[in-house]
Amino acid sequence: MARVYNFSAGPACLPEEVLKQAAEEMLDYQGTGMSVMEMSHRSKAFDKIIKDAEADLRELMGIPENYKVLFLQGGATQQFAAIPMNLMQNKVADYIVSGSWSKKAFKEAKLYGKANLLASSEDENFSYVPDVDAIEVSEDADYVYICQNETIYGTVYHKLPDTKGKPLVADVSSCFLSEPINVEDYGLIYGGVQKNVGPAGCTIVIVREDLIREGVIPETPSIMRYKTQADADSLSNTPPCYAIYICGLVFKWIKAQGGLEGMKKLNEEKAALLYDFLDNSKLFKGTARKEDRSIMNVPFVTGDAELDALFVAEAKKAGIESIKGHRSVGGMRASIYNAMPMEGVKALVEFMKEFEIKNK
Amino acid sequence: MARVYNFSAGPACLPEEVLKQAAEEMLDYQGTGMSVMEMSHRSKAFDKIIKDAEADLRELMGIPENYKVLFLQGGATQQFAAIPMNLMQNKVADYIVSGSWSKKAFKEAKLYGKANLLASSEDENFSYVPDVDAIEVSEDADYVYICQNETIYGTVYHKLPDTKGKPLVADVSSCFLSEPINVEDYGLIYGGVQKNVGPAGCTIVIVREDLIREGVIPETPSIMRYKTQADADSLSNTPPCYAIYICGLVFKWIKAQGGLEGMKKLNEEKAALLYDFLDNSKLFKGTARKEDRSIMNVPFVTGDAELDALFVAEAKKAGIESIKGHRSVGGMRASIYNAMPMEGVKALVEFMKEFEIKNK
Repeated sequence: MARVYNFSAGPACLPEEVLKQAAEEMLDYQGTGMSVMEMSHRSKAFDKIIKDAEADLRELMGIPENYKVLFLQGGATQQFAAIPMNLMQNKVADYIVSGSWSKKAFKEAKLYGKANLLASSEDENFSYVPDVDAIEVSEDADYVYICQNETIYGTVYHKLPDTKGKPLVADVSSCFLSEPINVEDYGLIYGGVQKNVGPAGCTIVIVREDLIREGVIPETPSIMRYKTQADADSLSNTPPCYAIYICGLVFKWIKAQGGLEGMKKLNEEKAALLYDFLDNSKLFKGTARKEDRSIMNVPFVTGDAELDALFVAEAKKAGIESIKGHRSVGGMRASIYNAMPMEGVKALVEFMKEFEIKNK
Repeated sequence: MARVYNFSAGPACLPEEVLKQAAEEMLDYQGTGMSVMEMSHRSKAFDKIIKDAEADLRELMGIPENYKVLFLQGGATQQFAAIPMNLMQNKVADYIVSGSWSKKAFKEAKLYGKANLLASSEDENFSYVPDVDAIEVSEDADYVYICQNETIYGTVYHKLPDTKGKPLVADVSSCFLSEPINVEDYGLIYGGVQKNVGPAGCTIVIVREDLIREGVIPETPSIMRYKTQADADSLSNTPPCYAIYICGLVFKWIKAQGGLEGMKKLNEEKAALLYDFLDNSKLFKGTARKEDRSIMNVPFVTGDAELDALFVAEAKKAGIESIKGHRSVGGMRASIYNAMPMEGVKALVEFMKEFEIKNK
């Protein structure tokens, strides 16, 4: 079978070149006589893999020297706990809830201290991002938390909140490396890599050094202490080596596409094609507020659940995979991450056009 | 370059057949048109992968129905915290320390309650397993903890402690699936898979259902609660999909080798070959007490650090990789896990014979 166009929200499509290289190197990584899966995480070969990955990521994102880059396990969900465990010095934090993921993070934080809800868009099923100019940061907050791109609802912060000097903590899982950002705007940036960067099983945490402290919630597992991991360059115990290797290949692929500026241009073009069609369609409509639309996740509906189901089923036959929307929104969702080529979005829009003609 | 014989203690060698299949399926897993790395963890294809993996593991180990099988992240080190967080109902646990790993687990448990040291073999650099007949289990202990096979020191429990009805918790990372065990002897069995089962980034926990409780240490992250993971069949959040897929391929490979009985026979033959040579060598000697020797990890020394270093360097030239011992023991260590073929051990012994002749 040919490769499909995979619109899954995550785990998600990876660059074909990366998969080809991984397949070629599977039994013998660059003359070592072994797979990356087989080599000691203390070996020279793996040391180069993880250091190159970090160097490439630093270059891509322009990460300043006073930020550490950690390659961890447990997914973003584990960070929902790790962040308050490590950062809640006053046991107070501010959360803006713009979707399911920030809501889960907010709930988890309550295990460790006082979590304030600064704003929420749950009143309209998270179809918009709360007005960041209307928030009031708590004086004693240890940090202000956002999920920058909510995967399920397809919204993104186009403007960051003014945190009044408090560290901004952002879950960027579903917009990681999709466009340039200014790392210094954040105290901590993190994301599960399985959407835009690599395979499931690795979480990247980029954290300003002054936030890495000895003093944490006493029950924090050693492995979840940023200090433990930072001091050991993410090798406090065996890291998810193969996932890190694939991330490293993706970083090199992004560099070859023109870096984050190149990705942004491509991502904006892909998103424009799809949103333009949606805005002019009589059958389909996007569910996120226009001003807050994500260029990564594009949820849309026909307004008729049966027709939605028919669309998903027929799309699958046409090689358009995993286009079904999350049950919280219904309908469809096209996740058009970095690795989704323009051809994939064109194929989707063509298919939508034909479907609209047949079903009007 | 040809494949080497990789004696790494972990991550470690994997069956070549498994790597070949993984490479072949990299761009298109069984007609899905995508890599296993790219597919949603909620997809039918991945659902079958994880369910087949669990079914095969249950069959291989004879896991009774009242035990749950969890595929988690974070490595054994994360379980050092998760075990007391979940199991310390009375906030008391008994630990037997037979090496670095059980010592680390013992230390971590102290973050969550009273951890009693029942016995230790640190007095002789962990070269033996403490006498299990001499231990006195605490009356109020929530569990008794062992590391069944200590990777660094090459020791194994040939007899399990009588825990007086308390749940026995065992870290089996470095002897996982190396021979049949009676699962009902344990309350909880777990291991990082990167030694004998698969690539780094997945930890398998096999836990008796009555030990999966709502009531845990309050600060336990949601994702580390066995109940969260058991209720969600390990899909509470995105699991390490690709690592689970590789584990599943390894399970099928083990079944084709005659299951755990077949592995035991092969592993005993490999170990016998190496130990027989060591016991008759005038240059090399094993460092673990004979009665407690592991069939998985075989540390040995010449008694001369310079000669050890020469051995490691020359072995590498001969395609014998990652044979250097851990710094705590020095010398060499041959990890001869399931995937190490008899030919690899023969090649090692031949090389040792020649080295001994040259350096006597």
